[in-house]
Amino acid sequence: MISPGSTLSAMRAAIPLVHQITNYVVMNETANATLALGALPVMAHAGEEVEEMTRIASSLVLNIGTLSEHWVEAMLLAGGAANARGIPVVLDPVGAGATAYRTATAHRILGLVDVTVVRGNAGEIATLVGAQAEVRGVESISTGLEPAELAREAARRLGVIASVTGPVDHVSDGERVLAVSNGHELLSTVTGTGCMSTAITGCFLAVKSDEPLEAASEALAAFGVAAEDAAAGAAGPGTFHARLYDALYALDPETLDGRARIEEL
Amino acid sequence: MISPGSTLSAMRAAIPLVHQITNYVVMNETANATLALGALPVMAHAGEEVEEMTRIASSLVLNIGTLSEHWVEAMLLAGGAANARGIPVVLDPVGAGATAYRTATAHRILGLVDVTVVRGNAGEIATLVGAQAEVRGVESISTGLEPAELAREAARRLGVIASVTGPVDHVSDGERVLAVSNGHELLSTVTGTGCMSTAITGCFLAVKSDEPLEAASEALAAFGVAAEDAAAGAAGPGTFHARLYDALYALDPETLDGRARIEEL
Amino acid sequence: MISPGSTLSAMRAAIPLVHQITNYVVMNETANATLALGALPVMAHAGEEVEEMTRIASSLVLNIGTLSEHWVEAMLLAGGAANARGIPVVLDPVGAGATAYRTATAHRILGLVDVTVVRGNAGEIATLVGAQAEVRGVESISTGLEPAELAREAARRLGVIASVTGPVDHVSDGERVLAVSNGHELLSTVTGTGCMSTAITGCFLAVKSDEPLEAASEALAAFGVAAEDAAAGAAGPGTFHARLYDALYALDPETLDGRARIEEL
Repeated sequence: MISPGSTLSAMRAAIPLVHQITNYVVMNETANATLALGALPVMAHAGEEVEEMTRIASSLVLNIGTLSEHWVEAMLLAGGAANARGIPVVLDPVGAGATAYRTATAHRILGLVDVTVVRGNAGEIATLVGAQAEVRGVESISTGLEPAELAREAARRLGVIASVTGPVDHVSDGERVLAVSNGHELLSTVTGTGCMSTAITGCFLAVKSDEPLEAASEALAAFGVAAEDAAAGAAGPGTFHARLYDALYALDPETLDGRARIEEL
Repeated sequence: MISPGSTLSAMRAAIPLVHQITNYVVMNETANATLALGALPVMAHAGEEVEEMTRIASSLVLNIGTLSEHWVEAMLLAGGAANARGIPVVLDPVGAGATAYRTATAHRILGLVDVTVVRGNAGEIATLVGAQAEVRGVESISTGLEPAELAREAARRLGVIASVTGPVDHVSDGERVLAVSNGHELLSTVTGTGCMSTAITGCFLAVKSDEPLEAASEALAAFGVAAEDAAAGAAGPGTFHARLYDALYALDPETLDGRARIEEL
Repeated sequence: MISPGSTLSAMRAAIPLVHQITNYVVMNETANATLALGALPVMAHAGEEVEEMTRIASSLVLNIGTLSEHWVEAMLLAGGAANARGIPVVLDPVGAGATAYRTATAHRILGLVDVTVVRGNAGEIATLVGAQAEVRGVESISTGLEPAELAREAARRLGVIASVTGPVDHVSDGERVLAVSNGHELLSTVTGTGCMSTAITGCFLAVKSDEPLEAASEALAAFGVAAEDAAAGAAGPGTFHARLYDALYALDPETLDGRARIEEL
């Protein structure tokens, strides 16, 4: 059942610990987004402790935005611990397609870890399914596939829930496709908002791991509604960014279902 | 003598350099808090330079929030240089109790470096004295000790000034206990505010190293008063966070003593 | 020809990818400044991918603010790739003069990479030309040279465009000196604003690499005008910081030339 308001309420009641191994650029942002929403972030990447940290967490978020070997190895260790415990794993393949190292690392993680949801932009996801894609740095420029079809195809080929974000987001389990049309164009003017949507996906999955397609869609709708609230009254990217945490904190579970624009295609 | 206003004035006149080896999540925040308050932050962690950097600093802040081996070794080198020069060292044992690695690292630093002040939440500090504690990620859930007693006990056993923050903060040298009741609940909605209080402790100690119990308490009162100012007019965690730097910058030494709520128990 | 408005327009039309290997403290800030201005940032530092990333970028920014060996090696690899392609390289020698390691690393990069522009404060730049300088942490305290002369001398000796920022900025190619007097004192209350000016220098150079003296001066003028706009209505460092991204985003190419205060000495 799709009800972002109910999932948000459940999450705020449970205050799940969300273990994030993410990039240097957005670490503060995703921790603050997680906390503002009502969950508990923890950032830990040392090989000595990642498995133990994952064992006390309710979900694991892996993000390859500023990767290097030690970090990738930590991600694999944490991923293994998450799988052993059966908690959901979200992967953000930042910049896959921009360099061979990123593409290969995303595939390596997908090969060794049972990933629940892959959240990326169209270029990154298209890269992972071998479709034509242009990725400049961490930005998607173009792909050869229509986004709903891309999400479905990626879900099938990678054996995951594919969450493809853009002006309209598309989330698929390989059969069904849910389109989420909340959000605001100011999101693209702040770095790390994609990574924040991945972190929030981890927060929702932490309390709804049995319905990952729905949870991933609800997370994007909730984040999009918060962005809409933050944009009202923002004077540009900086004040929008500050207001985004206010909006996540103020998200009202009672009205969220009515504001969420999730439809099955 | 307890006078946060006088210490703040002395600090702004001296503009002490505060060397911080801290975690990735809060690095920007603690640098900005230090700068807004009126001191000069420097972040340096390479083994090649930490001792030299510590030698030109007036205090050293060590924070294990996103630790790994190279960083721990740099902390030990910097700690040794700080001890050799006799400048104060503040340790923030972020997440001690959450993983064995964090607990062991905090003990390792305490064993090899003469630490002046340990600033942590109740769960972290309780872990260090071997008391019962529940720490989820970097959050304190519960401990088996009343906080004033915990501060006193930690100060005695660890041979430091123990600064235990929470709804009311307790700072002890093992004999006396000072309770600080400034602050605002929005602090817990922004990641890194504990780390900021540690950095500000380093700023105050830099100019009042001969009275570390008083300096540590004054730092928490000053930060708490700034949080109260920031909360007035904030719409949530994001605008509170931006306003917190404004408030640190605008802290008025003339009125600070009257607003500080520090009492000896 | 000096026209920051025209360069800004060209940059927003081209949306150049600016590859930044920078320090942990400011990574989020420089990415957001780049994005707010209208260019596309990418942060990547792994030896496995830096050359490939530089090959799709239009300029490269190297910043030694929190350096360590792996990062320096990545900077050298990326610098080599940038030189091979002929794209501009901007170096920010953060803290040169504060420790021998920073000074030596800045010289090492200058020796092995053909750097287009060095952007630093007076103390850092004076250190690099062997002049008397006092640098505390990452702050310039004093130098033995008048800033215009320092810029000219540094440009000659280092074979670069020297961009020396301060209350008034001085940019020189060794012959001509351009003074830029835009900006606001609140810039010095936020960490990383120097690093942001370096990143923005990279954005302007990306579309005006044939006139690096002009491009570097225009970048500082544009950033200074944005700071002036951000300061109007800011209540302190925190709200100024948020408003700075708003102001970069809102910078108007039509009026920028009239507001820029660039004069040839």
